[in-house]
Amino acid sequence: MRYGVIGTGGVARTIADRLVGLGQEVTLGSRSRDNGTAVAWAAGAGENGRHGTFADAAAFGEVVLNATPGTVAVEALRAAGAERLAGKLLVDLSNPLVFSPEGELTLDPVNTDSVGERIQREFPEALVVKTLNTLTAALMVDPSRLPGEHNLFVAGNDPDAKARTVELLGTFGWPAGWVIDLGDITGARAMEMTMPFWLRLMGAFGTAEFNYAFKRAQ
Amino acid sequence: MRYGVIGTGGVARTIADRLVGLGQEVTLGSRSRDNGTAVAWAAGAGENGRHGTFADAAAFGEVVLNATPGTVAVEALRAAGAERLAGKLLVDLSNPLVFSPEGELTLDPVNTDSVGERIQREFPEALVVKTLNTLTAALMVDPSRLPGEHNLFVAGNDPDAKARTVELLGTFGWPAGWVIDLGDITGARAMEMTMPFWLRLMGAFGTAEFNYAFKRAQ
Repeated sequence: MRYGVIGTGGVARTIADRLVGLGQEVTLGSRSRDNGTAVAWAAGAGENGRHGTFADAAAFGEVVLNATPGTVAVEALRAAGAERLAGKLLVDLSNPLVFSPEGELTLDPVNTDSVGERIQREFPEALVVKTLNTLTAALMVDPSRLPGEHNLFVAGNDPDAKARTVELLGTFGWPAGWVIDLGDITGARAMEMTMPFWLRLMGAFGTAEFNYAFKRAQ
Repeated sequence: MRYGVIGTGGVARTIADRLVGLGQEVTLGSRSRDNGTAVAWAAGAGENGRHGTFADAAAFGEVVLNATPGTVAVEALRAAGAERLAGKLLVDLSNPLVFSPEGELTLDPVNTDSVGERIQREFPEALVVKTLNTLTAALMVDPSRLPGEHNLFVAGNDPDAKARTVELLGTFGWPAGWVIDLGDITGARAMEMTMPFWLRLMGAFGTAEFNYAFKRAQ
């Protein structure tokens, strides 16, 4: 299968590495075709790893993953091109983190909107699924780094697109039963709004390698 | 010990019942002295349960717990009176849930402020600790309803006030090791912003009786 990964940061490269390691073909997309990080990544990724523009990555992928920061995601996907996203599963991993002038971490959008919803509105023919924005990159692609069952979340309007996302997560090591369906794409709001909580927890735990697990009444 | 519980809703009465059950003295405070719910609660609570105004409850309590909705918490505590809160542990359990005209659940304040912070700013001489706003009332006072370890959170500016809160939670059944310290009162922002996530999870699980348990790298 061919994947387009939009973005060249740590999350993008972690996902791209994992996909290549699973034998998938990946184009890592950046704003410019000669982005040094993307060129270096492709050079090290072997024959299944390519680099290109956002548009190249979107055109290449049968599935497209957005791993840009949430604050620039819509702009990056516009550069990728609506026609190259139409009809495709578009997995959104982003969080719209903004540091306030006081140095506090805030979100934009928040509360009445989310990046996931913005992407779905902007690209109505794409099948947007929000997932993986609730934990650190190393855990996204290797849940066995933590003991026992812990949880991921998906939100999106298209049930089949969510099912395909759960399958993809399965190839990363996530049993389907660990993935909690939070409903339509407005669930992205709930997922993105956990970021301040996650950052406080990281401070309390002294590590980013932690994740949600839920206890429920038996 | 004497506790003033501000509010007469389900959370307020659940907390008040538990405190009375533990042999503590409680005044349940409402806007008006003859609030029917508060009168009925006190009638059923035995000799350690009283009812009164917000001011009566605040005056009575060596510790005061705010269990009003977050949207009216500051106003209720103003009625309670700053002079009756000064120097006291003020435990804030509230969430500022607001339904938008579209029927969506939102928060106000959110992102750059929180109810916990507003209360601390408005009553600088009170020792505000945010806790218990992240789970359903039945679990607040009986964590054994879920199997194994699961987590609570505290945030506040005064370390001693947080330690006293952890002790109080201990009397409800929460081992100190299950309570995660999220730092100063700005951590209330992170805690309140989990509400949309919690509500989506409740929908996914089909029950409000669930709670966070965190897996961490070993």
